[in-house]
Amino acid sequence: MKRKIRMGMIGGGRDSFIGAIHRIAANMDGQIELVCGCFSSSPEKSQKSGYDLYLPDDRIYTSYQQMIEEESKLPENVRMDFVSIVTPNYLHFHPAMMALEYRFHVVLDKPMTFTLKEAYALQKKVEESRLLFALTHTYTGYPMIKEAKERVRRGDLGKIRRIYVQYTQGWLSDDIAESNKQASWRVDPNRSGKAGCMGDIGTHAFNLANYITGLDVDEISAELNSFVPNRELDDDGVVLIRYKGGARGMLSATQIAVGEENKLNIQIYGEKGGLEWHQEEPNTMIMKWKDRPKEIIRTSSGYMSPSSLHNSRTPAGHPEGYIEAFANIYRNFANALQHLLQGEDISVVEKDFPSAEDGVKGMQFIEYVVESSSNNTKWIKITE
Amino acid sequence: MKRKIRMGMIGGGRDSFIGAIHRIAANMDGQIELVCGCFSSSPEKSQKSGYDLYLPDDRIYTSYQQMIEEESKLPENVRMDFVSIVTPNYLHFHPAMMALEYRFHVVLDKPMTFTLKEAYALQKKVEESRLLFALTHTYTGYPMIKEAKERVRRGDLGKIRRIYVQYTQGWLSDDIAESNKQASWRVDPNRSGKAGCMGDIGTHAFNLANYITGLDVDEISAELNSFVPNRELDDDGVVLIRYKGGARGMLSATQIAVGEENKLNIQIYGEKGGLEWHQEEPNTMIMKWKDRPKEIIRTSSGYMSPSSLHNSRTPAGHPEGYIEAFANIYRNFANALQHLLQGEDISVVEKDFPSAEDGVKGMQFIEYVVESSSNNTKWIKITE
Amino acid sequence: MKRKIRMGMIGGGRDSFIGAIHRIAANMDGQIELVCGCFSSSPEKSQKSGYDLYLPDDRIYTSYQQMIEEESKLPENVRMDFVSIVTPNYLHFHPAMMALEYRFHVVLDKPMTFTLKEAYALQKKVEESRLLFALTHTYTGYPMIKEAKERVRRGDLGKIRRIYVQYTQGWLSDDIAESNKQASWRVDPNRSGKAGCMGDIGTHAFNLANYITGLDVDEISAELNSFVPNRELDDDGVVLIRYKGGARGMLSATQIAVGEENKLNIQIYGEKGGLEWHQEEPNTMIMKWKDRPKEIIRTSSGYMSPSSLHNSRTPAGHPEGYIEAFANIYRNFANALQHLLQGEDISVVEKDFPSAEDGVKGMQFIEYVVESSSNNTKWIKITE
Amino acid sequence: MKRKIRMGMIGGGRDSFIGAIHRIAANMDGQIELVCGCFSSSPEKSQKSGYDLYLPDDRIYTSYQQMIEEESKLPENVRMDFVSIVTPNYLHFHPAMMALEYRFHVVLDKPMTFTLKEAYALQKKVEESRLLFALTHTYTGYPMIKEAKERVRRGDLGKIRRIYVQYTQGWLSDDIAESNKQASWRVDPNRSGKAGCMGDIGTHAFNLANYITGLDVDEISAELNSFVPNRELDDDGVVLIRYKGGARGMLSATQIAVGEENKLNIQIYGEKGGLEWHQEEPNTMIMKWKDRPKEIIRTSSGYMSPSSLHNSRTPAGHPEGYIEAFANIYRNFANALQHLLQGEDISVVEKDFPSAEDGVKGMQFIEYVVESSSNNTKWIKITE
Repeated sequence: MKRKIRMGMIGGGRDSFIGAIHRIAANMDGQIELVCGCFSSSPEKSQKSGYDLYLPDDRIYTSYQQMIEEESKLPENVRMDFVSIVTPNYLHFHPAMMALEYRFHVVLDKPMTFTLKEAYALQKKVEESRLLFALTHTYTGYPMIKEAKERVRRGDLGKIRRIYVQYTQGWLSDDIAESNKQASWRVDPNRSGKAGCMGDIGTHAFNLANYITGLDVDEISAELNSFVPNRELDDDGVVLIRYKGGARGMLSATQIAVGEENKLNIQIYGEKGGLEWHQEEPNTMIMKWKDRPKEIIRTSSGYMSPSSLHNSRTPAGHPEGYIEAFANIYRNFANALQHLLQGEDISVVEKDFPSAEDGVKGMQFIEYVVESSSNNTKWIKITE
Repeated sequence: MKRKIRMGMIGGGRDSFIGAIHRIAANMDGQIELVCGCFSSSPEKSQKSGYDLYLPDDRIYTSYQQMIEEESKLPENVRMDFVSIVTPNYLHFHPAMMALEYRFHVVLDKPMTFTLKEAYALQKKVEESRLLFALTHTYTGYPMIKEAKERVRRGDLGKIRRIYVQYTQGWLSDDIAESNKQASWRVDPNRSGKAGCMGDIGTHAFNLANYITGLDVDEISAELNSFVPNRELDDDGVVLIRYKGGARGMLSATQIAVGEENKLNIQIYGEKGGLEWHQEEPNTMIMKWKDRPKEIIRTSSGYMSPSSLHNSRTPAGHPEGYIEAFANIYRNFANALQHLLQGEDISVVEKDFPSAEDGVKGMQFIEYVVESSSNNTKWIKITE
Repeated sequence: MKRKIRMGMIGGGRDSFIGAIHRIAANMDGQIELVCGCFSSSPEKSQKSGYDLYLPDDRIYTSYQQMIEEESKLPENVRMDFVSIVTPNYLHFHPAMMALEYRFHVVLDKPMTFTLKEAYALQKKVEESRLLFALTHTYTGYPMIKEAKERVRRGDLGKIRRIYVQYTQGWLSDDIAESNKQASWRVDPNRSGKAGCMGDIGTHAFNLANYITGLDVDEISAELNSFVPNRELDDDGVVLIRYKGGARGMLSATQIAVGEENKLNIQIYGEKGGLEWHQEEPNTMIMKWKDRPKEIIRTSSGYMSPSSLHNSRTPAGHPEGYIEAFANIYRNFANALQHLLQGEDISVVEKDFPSAEDGVKGMQFIEYVVESSSNNTKWIKITE
Repeated sequence: MKRKIRMGMIGGGRDSFIGAIHRIAANMDGQIELVCGCFSSSPEKSQKSGYDLYLPDDRIYTSYQQMIEEESKLPENVRMDFVSIVTPNYLHFHPAMMALEYRFHVVLDKPMTFTLKEAYALQKKVEESRLLFALTHTYTGYPMIKEAKERVRRGDLGKIRRIYVQYTQGWLSDDIAESNKQASWRVDPNRSGKAGCMGDIGTHAFNLANYITGLDVDEISAELNSFVPNRELDDDGVVLIRYKGGARGMLSATQIAVGEENKLNIQIYGEKGGLEWHQEEPNTMIMKWKDRPKEIIRTSSGYMSPSSLHNSRTPAGHPEGYIEAFANIYRNFANALQHLLQGEDISVVEKDFPSAEDGVKGMQFIEYVVESSSNNTKWIKITE
């Protein structure tokens, strides 16, 4: 008997930006219901947040440990199926490990963990558990990115030569750590990790290029900068990437570009063609060719590939956005979980969402970028 | 005690486009739950659609009459609070009237009714019932349109002189009535009404201009065309509008513009400034001034007005789209309903969604446009 | 023996905008040299203007009559070959007639004349003279417009159904007649003619649609407005056009759209495809198709038609603009003239520039638009 | 007595792209006349090219040496004032040195010379000669770039932190050296110099950033790539730049980005604001601010700075392009020369065009980029 998937949530209380986005994304397609949560380290705040969300008192918890333990004791047709973890980076690893330990599937915000070592351990745990694990690299959820992947992988552009990916924001161009909750933990090495901007948004850019092309890194050369006085972590940087097989990448990320919002752009060029996509206008992609006109590719058009159409909800010209991209991760996760609930094996279920492996790659990226930035040898080889 | 709002649905079965959009829009913010429905005139199809939506058998109905009657007998803490009607135009009036009769609030797809006479009757019924009624003129739900309204109404552009609004689609450039369910009823006078394109999308364009400026029509001059052979209703048209107070409007709507998706654009010019908005890139508006640079206004920016920010869910640069605009109608409707449930009077509740009055204006527009198109007097006065 | 073509100029003195543009356009390709001029009705101003342009004293004249007479007496290898007339509208007819009378070829600014009657007379004179005559409808000189014409005429879009052409400016949104020389004669019925905005820029829009499609007008319905207090001529208007053969046109022109510069846009849709062009970004055209992506057509690309490439000077990506479009009219005029000088017959010489016939059509357009605007019959038939 | 400036030309014969552009640029404003030339190393081709340009036989030369010598013997009121040198890179130095030796002013195509050593020698010669020297870094001639410089230099953006400049072309994505004359010398180390793409277009990007900001380089880190098999010079590269004072630059240049035309884009961010400009739409610049809307700056608008307006020829909305930018270099050069001819001293004449110093900086850039690319030390200090 088909039923809705039951979600619990760790983090994401009243003043969280990303928690609300996760919930909208999970709600949207009517397949998932929020059944419990521990929304804050403050019990009172957790309670109020749960009340806002129409949860009964007994499913609002005061710690993630309590939630995981109590939920595991509930009857199978009541307890949550999976937990969504939306805490700051330094609080990713332990709740995720414990949830898996107690046999709950996991959706985890990126970057995967606080350290690379944790990432390896969590990846191992995920593999052993044979449970579902999704990392919310939102941008891979866009239908146009599914299309880009499809087209690059099937060779429309020919052998890939050159990748430019730029993630340009301006909201941290001043020191706003005290006044802005989103900013305060991101610029704090004790809560964010080794990298600031590069960990927060550079990893998205890195993941996007990897998702579309499938190319892995051979060597990198990085420069990290910190422009705002007294900022401990980077707020800007550039990474040159030599991909295995000969492609070259240029990745920039900055959070001090005054006036920029969330400008994630990617251009990829192969021997036969090129493509260009801008996150702020996500339903359009430009394809470039040698001896014929550029083409404007638009989501939901009849000529789109099945994987892109499958991740679209509206007809062409009715713009979908960031929330729908986010929702695609939840929807594809819920679809996979439905198949598991109906007895399919995890090894054959389609998992069209970012994985623990993607998470580990992101943590390696942070590790090597920080290392490269601090020494004067140009190229550093990525070894796993 | 705060609780979720309970929705029933009439129409919107398995192969309906707009039914699915209504549900996503209603789900998104976690305030509304679908509790029952009659999704099709075919009982079997209604049953399957309800099953897809995780509804229990006893809340899936085989006729709207049955649904409204049965739901009205359920206990107050179980039965639906409102009904969402998403059937073709000729099936709007009777379900809406009956729902109001049985004291259910109503969300209704546009245009309001099949005839202007029905529209007047429904408007009267709504007013007498003191129940909530929303018409889903989606485009008014965009946060940028809230901003445009705010800015025009407070006089940023000065006295309005000139409005251009153009709604350009291409999907009906061939005769696809047999192969496409969406097309088949839209081009059929027995199901769509007196106008085709002008009723389907022209009314959106008309409503948008009225919503932003508050200007009402004095006189119109219209030309309707039918380009596809054997098509009985218009698939293209232009309406010149003389607004009360002296502003001039030029409205075009077409569904035969090959290659166009859902290109609804509006430009408004006053004595002091102008604005321009494109639905296909809805998070941007251009403001135009006399002796200083044009400005790019972006949703969720700190400088946006409270009514626009209130209708946004993500930070600037994280694009919101059509579904979020749609969801704003449901969210604002649910907010108003929550206030009613908590005892507030309907006359003081904020109703930030299109009303029965908007619906009547739309039906008048259709009536007069069709009349103008068929005679050789240039200007026809709108009399109510 | 090949030599440069010799140009004389009437009008276009020191503070003329369009005179300077004409000269730059004529200079650009090195085929034409300015040899004489009567630049102003003030002899002193004419003298100073000629001095600025390095002309010898004896080739700077104080009246156009004097210039035409004196030049005609000069030896054949010295005197001007053609005259360029860039005076306000009311001063087009007589100089043009006299120049033809004295056997000089003519380039004339648009609109052709002050009245339709003059236009017919000038057209007759041109035909009888077997001299070259060009009207500077600049926008037809753009290489992308050559391409659009080529593609529409060869049937790429199929039978044309719908044309939208909009010319939107804002510079006359206030009463600036006293302070701005360009404005002062344009808003004066004694110098501009029956129409203001519609004559100044509406005729460009009308000509553009006709140039690309070759469609002629059957009936029109027009509304002219005058928004600025005390302005005698229209500063805004809309014209609905029924073309012969069934296509429908919607043309708008305004000069009160605050903040707009020179926004001339055209969209054309046929049974098989559509195109869109914006004058302010003139090197790009979008082609639209049924079941495949829109295409971005770019000037100077290898796939462009010979007539477009012939009117381009730079490789793709090196933008050409308004002046080059203007220069194409002069260059094509000079090319034709070179052929005449070498003995070819005027009936076989390629004349890729706007003609007297185009000028007459423009004057008819003004005549009928003004008539339609002033009465309440919707449709007026164009009879020649 | 004011007169036209007389130009001679070295290179730029019949099938040269850049020669024709130089001539159009020089012609455009009617201040300069071509009086002589040596257009090709082939006497016959030089003769035919001169004939095309209406030159008398005795002013068409068969070698640049002959031309410079012969012209120097002509009377002062006949001989050329300056020479424009538009040969491939390896043929820049000697003609320029000889022209200066014979007291002719010089306009020279970029990059300045074949080697850095030559550049230093030529710079020294220019300084000693007290003659005018202009290098045609075209992109600095755009009116919008004048505006950008003005705004950055006066501090509108605050202290500059981050520069992104990207020059992306696709025309060399295949090996076309044999079929394309423009390509053949550019990919040949014996005619182009040490760098291919980086010398050809990377220097433009480098110069543009320097021109706008006035920032000089402290350290660089570069990677050059050669993607097309058997190509001896780079066709792609990235350069990280540490400017003196703390700003960081990221410069990319490529000629293998299939489908790209001439996409030179620059973004500059300071502590208070940012700007963005795209060469392919050169009349628009976007300004970015902290708490207020982005602004769209447009050439020829009333609010533009005098230096930008001085370099514009048309009203706003009448697009100017590449040729006008080029012409601004010639026009400003001619203006300066007029002042010299009227006896002003070279040290006080305004020289709003790229100089020998800019040329030397470009050659240094090439030198250090090539060096950095070939070793594994990340940062190399620029020492002069």
